[in-house]
Amino acid sequence: MTVRVRVPASSSNLGSGFDCIGIAIDRWLSASVTLHNAVSAFSISRRGKLSAVRVRADQDLFTRGFRAACGAAGAVLPAGVTIDATSDIPVGCGLGSSAAAIVAGALLADTALGLGLSRAQILEIGTTIEGHPDNVAPAVYGGAVLSVHTPTGLVASPLAVAAGIELLIAVPPFPNDTKAARAALPQTLPHSDAVVAAGRAAALVQGLATGDGALLTAALDDVLHVPFRRGRIPGYDAVVHAARAAGAFGATLSGAGSAVLAIAPRERSTGVGAAMIAAWREIGIAAELIKCSSAVAGASVTTVPDTTHHARRTTHDSSVTKETS
Amino acid sequence: MTVRVRVPASSSNLGSGFDCIGIAIDRWLSASVTLHNAVSAFSISRRGKLSAVRVRADQDLFTRGFRAACGAAGAVLPAGVTIDATSDIPVGCGLGSSAAAIVAGALLADTALGLGLSRAQILEIGTTIEGHPDNVAPAVYGGAVLSVHTPTGLVASPLAVAAGIELLIAVPPFPNDTKAARAALPQTLPHSDAVVAAGRAAALVQGLATGDGALLTAALDDVLHVPFRRGRIPGYDAVVHAARAAGAFGATLSGAGSAVLAIAPRERSTGVGAAMIAAWREIGIAAELIKCSSAVAGASVTTVPDTTHHARRTTHDSSVTKETS
Repeated sequence: MTVRVRVPASSSNLGSGFDCIGIAIDRWLSASVTLHNAVSAFSISRRGKLSAVRVRADQDLFTRGFRAACGAAGAVLPAGVTIDATSDIPVGCGLGSSAAAIVAGALLADTALGLGLSRAQILEIGTTIEGHPDNVAPAVYGGAVLSVHTPTGLVASPLAVAAGIELLIAVPPFPNDTKAARAALPQTLPHSDAVVAAGRAAALVQGLATGDGALLTAALDDVLHVPFRRGRIPGYDAVVHAARAAGAFGATLSGAGSAVLAIAPRERSTGVGAAMIAAWREIGIAAELIKCSSAVAGASVTTVPDTTHHARRTTHDSSVTKETS
Repeated sequence: MTVRVRVPASSSNLGSGFDCIGIAIDRWLSASVTLHNAVSAFSISRRGKLSAVRVRADQDLFTRGFRAACGAAGAVLPAGVTIDATSDIPVGCGLGSSAAAIVAGALLADTALGLGLSRAQILEIGTTIEGHPDNVAPAVYGGAVLSVHTPTGLVASPLAVAAGIELLIAVPPFPNDTKAARAALPQTLPHSDAVVAAGRAAALVQGLATGDGALLTAALDDVLHVPFRRGRIPGYDAVVHAARAAGAFGATLSGAGSAVLAIAPRERSTGVGAAMIAAWREIGIAAELIKCSSAVAGASVTTVPDTTHHARRTTHDSSVTKETS
C-alpha cells in the first residue's frame, strides 16, 4: 500500500492569541511515502508551492517529522524513505507550511510503519520541532484550536467559532523571514501592555465563540507582537486599513506575516477581501486571496492499494524496492 | 415608595483574567434610599459587615455612585439623601465590596430619581470610579463576565461556566490593602512572561466554558500579578497547596486578596473548602468559607410602597420629608 496524508494550512496568532491560537485554512499539502531497502536515506520530490524549496532532504521538515515520529515510538528508521509531496500552501507567508510538512512527515511515518502514535503525540512532535504549537494544533485537529502548556502536558482545546464570521487572508508574493520576525520582539514589555494583551487574548476566545464584533476588534489589535513586526511587511498598514474600512472587525498578521488575515461578518466578507487585494495592488503588489467560510478539517491519512499507487506514481515509483504491507 | 437594591459580591481576576474577568459570588449588599428636602446632603446608615466602615458620608462609595449616576444623566442632586445599607460581603478582602457599594449607589439614584440609565451606563460609572471593570461587571450583570475596553466602548460579555465546577473562597479575618497590592506590581515584565500570561487568559475563558481541568490549572497559575502580591497574605502558599492537594484544579487570590479562591470539580469541592480552612487554622487564622455552586444573579432593584416602607424603617424614616413618587 501507499500511505497518503493531507494536511491543511493554518493561520496562527489571530492577533492577540500569540503562540497559542491558530485556525486551519482551506489550503492543503498532500504527501505520500514509499519505504525501500536501497540505502538512499531520505529523498523528497516536491511539486506545487513546494517546488521552490531548496533544502537537503535529510534536513527537510518532512524528514524531521518522520524521524521524530520514529524516535517517539522507539522504532528503527527504514533504510530508504521516498516522500512525494505537493502543496498549494504559500511557503514562508505565515500560513503554517512548515507545520503542515512536519505533521505530514510524522503521520506518514506513523501509518507506514504502524507506530500507533496518538494525535496528541503528533502534536507534541510537531511542537517540539516548531518551537510552538499554534500552527501544529490546527494542522493536526482542524478548526480553531487553543494550545496551552499545562503541568500535565500540552493541551489543545477546540475553540468555538461563531457561524456568522469569515476569515479573509491576503497573501503577497513575498515571504517573511520568521526568524527575523521573532528576533524583532522586545525583551520586556510595560506591565500595563501585558495586562492589555491578556485581556485581548481572552477577548479573542470569547469573540470567536460569540461573534461579538467589538470583542473581535479588540482581539485583532494585538500589542504583543504585531507592533514590532508590521514594519517588515510593505503595505501592511494600508491593507489593514482597507479591510476595516470595508467592514472587517479587524485585520492582523497571519502568523508573523507576510500574509494579512481579516475577520469579517459574512455579509461584508467579499468586499473586505477585494479591498485588501486592491490596497496591495495600489502599491504594485499582486496578492492572492484565500477565503475561509467554514471550519476546515484537520490532517487525514488514507492508504491506497499498490495497484492504484503504481498507476498514479510512475515517475517516482521507479526506485521503490520494498513497501510496508 | 422606597427603592431597595441588592448587589452581589464578586471575585475578580480568577488567576489570569487580571483586571478583565470577574464572577458574582453568593454574598449580598442591600441598600435603600430616602430622598428629602432637609439640606443634610448625604447620610448613610451602615449595618452588617459595613458597620466597621469609617468614611465620611460625602466620600462614601454609595455617595460616589449616586452622584456619578446623577452626573451621567445630567440630573440635579437631591437636597438630602439618606442611604440605609447592610451587607454580608467581607470588606477589603477581594470580594468586590467596593464595586457592590458603587453599583448600589448608582442604581438607587437611577431608580429613585427616574434617571433611565442602562445597565451599560451603570457599568461605565462603576468602572470610572473603581478604575477597572472586573468586579463592577459581575456586580451589575451576575455570573462570570469578561470586560474589555474596545474602540466602541467597554464591552461586558457573559462567560459560559461549565456545570461541573465549583468555586470555593476562603476569607481570612484581615483585609488587604488594595492600593499597596497594586503598587506591588512591577513596571515591566519579560516579554516571554507576557506571552504566557496571554495564553493563560485565553485558557481561563476556555477552561471555564469547557470545565477542562488542565486548562483551569494553567489559568489559575497567574504570572501577571499573583507572584508580586502573594507574599502580602500570610498563609497564602499553604492554603493554595492545601486546595490543590484536596483536588482543586488550582487556587489563587480573589481580586488582590486577602481571600483565596479555588476552582474544583464538584465532587471534590467539600474537601477542598475544608482543606483551605484547615490550612489557615494551622497558623492560627480563623477563615470563613464561601461556596458558589451555581451562577449568581446580578444586581436587582425593587420598589416598596410607602406603607411597607414606613412600617419597616421606623428609625431612619424620622428625617424623611419628601420622597420621589
